[in-house]
Amino acid sequence: MTDWTQMTLAGFQRGLSRGEFAPLDWWRACRERIDALEPTLQAWECQAPEPAITAPDGVKPGQSLFGIPVGIKDIIDTARLPTTWGTRGYHRVAQSDLDASIVTELARLGALPMGKTVSTEYAYFQPSKTRNPHDPTRTPGGSSSGSAAAVAAGMVPVALGTQTVGSIIRPASYCGVVGFKPTHGTLGVAGVKALAPSLDTLGWFTRHLEDSRTLFRALTGSPPIRTLTRLDGVRVGLCQVPSTHSPSPETATALKGAGEKMAALGADIGTAELGASFDELVAHQRVILAYEATRALASERERFGALMSSPLLALLDEGQNLTLATYWQARQATERARIELSQQLAERFDVLLAPSAPGAAPEGLASTGDPIYSRAWTLLGVPCVNLPLHWTPLGLPVGVQLIADRYQDQRLLSIASALMP
Amino acid sequence: MTDWTQMTLAGFQRGLSRGEFAPLDWWRACRERIDALEPTLQAWECQAPEPAITAPDGVKPGQSLFGIPVGIKDIIDTARLPTTWGTRGYHRVAQSDLDASIVTELARLGALPMGKTVSTEYAYFQPSKTRNPHDPTRTPGGSSSGSAAAVAAGMVPVALGTQTVGSIIRPASYCGVVGFKPTHGTLGVAGVKALAPSLDTLGWFTRHLEDSRTLFRALTGSPPIRTLTRLDGVRVGLCQVPSTHSPSPETATALKGAGEKMAALGADIGTAELGASFDELVAHQRVILAYEATRALASERERFGALMSSPLLALLDEGQNLTLATYWQARQATERARIELSQQLAERFDVLLAPSAPGAAPEGLASTGDPIYSRAWTLLGVPCVNLPLHWTPLGLPVGVQLIADRYQDQRLLSIASALMP
Repeated sequence: MTDWTQMTLAGFQRGLSRGEFAPLDWWRACRERIDALEPTLQAWECQAPEPAITAPDGVKPGQSLFGIPVGIKDIIDTARLPTTWGTRGYHRVAQSDLDASIVTELARLGALPMGKTVSTEYAYFQPSKTRNPHDPTRTPGGSSSGSAAAVAAGMVPVALGTQTVGSIIRPASYCGVVGFKPTHGTLGVAGVKALAPSLDTLGWFTRHLEDSRTLFRALTGSPPIRTLTRLDGVRVGLCQVPSTHSPSPETATALKGAGEKMAALGADIGTAELGASFDELVAHQRVILAYEATRALASERERFGALMSSPLLALLDEGQNLTLATYWQARQATERARIELSQQLAERFDVLLAPSAPGAAPEGLASTGDPIYSRAWTLLGVPCVNLPLHWTPLGLPVGVQLIADRYQDQRLLSIASALMP
Repeated sequence: MTDWTQMTLAGFQRGLSRGEFAPLDWWRACRERIDALEPTLQAWECQAPEPAITAPDGVKPGQSLFGIPVGIKDIIDTARLPTTWGTRGYHRVAQSDLDASIVTELARLGALPMGKTVSTEYAYFQPSKTRNPHDPTRTPGGSSSGSAAAVAAGMVPVALGTQTVGSIIRPASYCGVVGFKPTHGTLGVAGVKALAPSLDTLGWFTRHLEDSRTLFRALTGSPPIRTLTRLDGVRVGLCQVPSTHSPSPETATALKGAGEKMAALGADIGTAELGASFDELVAHQRVILAYEATRALASERERFGALMSSPLLALLDEGQNLTLATYWQARQATERARIELSQQLAERFDVLLAPSAPGAAPEGLASTGDPIYSRAWTLLGVPCVNLPLHWTPLGLPVGVQLIADRYQDQRLLSIASALMP
């Protein structure tokens, strides 16, 4: 019997072309798994009906996603499934005008929608109902809670996520899956509910790193990404922004382990001291988030303010009280930091190795955990990938993230391949 | 009798507070003017019903737009008016889920929607039905065709526009009104149909430059913008990107006149030689536009492709054939040019003086004219204002634009005030 959790996207394509699988096989296996686990995990806002099967037309070999089940975060518009934007139903649209462009692109490549995965309210901090597959008393992280949990639980091999603060990398770390946030603006966000457009980045979760390479190639129409077995000459900078916080011992262990593994593969490991101006990026990210969110959700607040959670209202109040000058200063500081980071990376490091989260998924469902270690990277727009390389004695995953300069997404995924063959 | 075309936003607020006007007076005068001129000009996609009047609550003095009639470009969502995105009806939504955030913000400030102004198809090049108020056989420019024409004809004192290529500055020049494009990202674009998010900039048209200062203050919650009567010590760089094109004699005359006027007010006029790398920005803008538009309108093309105009389909085809590498190269070149422009401006010039369009509005309605002189500035995200300072012997307006570095919007409007008291 096929172990679908071990299946890769490329493996399924090969099996399909050899006639070993029918196009709906994986989708149906996912549906069974969802039926079994959903009562506990609550990763889905709604499920799609069994799709009609049409082989994609004009898709290049290596870019087909024919028959691949995909979870779609519920802040992404779908014309044939309802969208709630994580609002616990107070803002629900039974049928959007059009699919988000990423949904159209996935359909063009032959992927099959599995349903809408649970998001926190407008992709901010108010926790959702979803539970962590490794311990249902813990948060899966947020805001892409359902996507991370569904992929981790084997309910679906791929799910779309978005990151505005730390909403891909943190839940990927807590759920023990690969999470990839491309360079800001790589994938179009038409039809994705905006929280803070300068920060909002569309990405995804997969069980296998190989699948993230496959997706990158398919969704961007790029050449195949080279895999590496050795890292000789690759310069790795250990890094933590803000430097003023200390991660938990489990995160420190995960980082140490990843660094040793990279060194054993031939990489040169150094320490990236980015300095105090990078610590300030955390505050700048908060300013840009609050300022833009207040404007992006102005109409939602007008209509649904009485039903919004207190964390969201606090963010929107914060943004209302910020001046344009403060917002512009944060943007200018970001631009300076981008230039400085590019210089430092060009001179000293190919990738940075950094914590994905302060520790393993915290207990309880009252918080989605702390996105502190993603704020600066999201602000800078750099590509980040969470690698689930460490597990605590309790069986909880603790990820690390690799980070590259903007536009180095393929190089980043190539270097990561040595760590997760 | 009040000459409403001479009325300023601040003047109306003063009159209101003194009881000289009733809140609906201006709105009703606009409706009469629209009734008289709309059969010829065709600036409106639909008109709003007479609004209920509620004085805005909690708006600071100087930021109120109470009773100000505003035209809303028809690519901007309105919950109570239909939206067609300029598609000649093939993509019409009778009621959007929510107002665009700018519409909510205008309502909060007390402004009154006058209706939706005609846009070209998805704010690209396919001409609309609107005619130039100064000569109905000529184009008003595009894509904000209806907004520019409506303000020029006195149908409304303010109309929202967007610029992705040259859609505010060019129609403002052709119609003889003030057009203002703020620094990219200054106003939130939630609910504004995306064409190319890196470029899409929300701005406006007014008859009076003072009204653009009032709007900037109201919509950004900023302090008042200082007016100038002299320009002593202000450094002005005459500039034309691309340098490879020659504007018409009428545009050259407009530029010369503006430069002389600034010099007479004490400004130091020099020539900004930005070099060949800036000429290349025109090509980079085309790449980013095509790449992003293809992704932004993927679902629209899927659904309405058979009904789309050939210019739009050509753009979407162009974008489909671009690689991610080409797109990223264009973005990186843009980032380098931004740094270089900031350096040059800091060292040498406070503002640049440049053509708004190659000449006066061209004859006929088969084209909206050439946006060539806006492509680089839109790409760079800098604030631009069109000033209607010159008129041809035929009575056609020819604007010039003043341009400042990003985040210098208030300084730009301040310097412009000396030219249009």
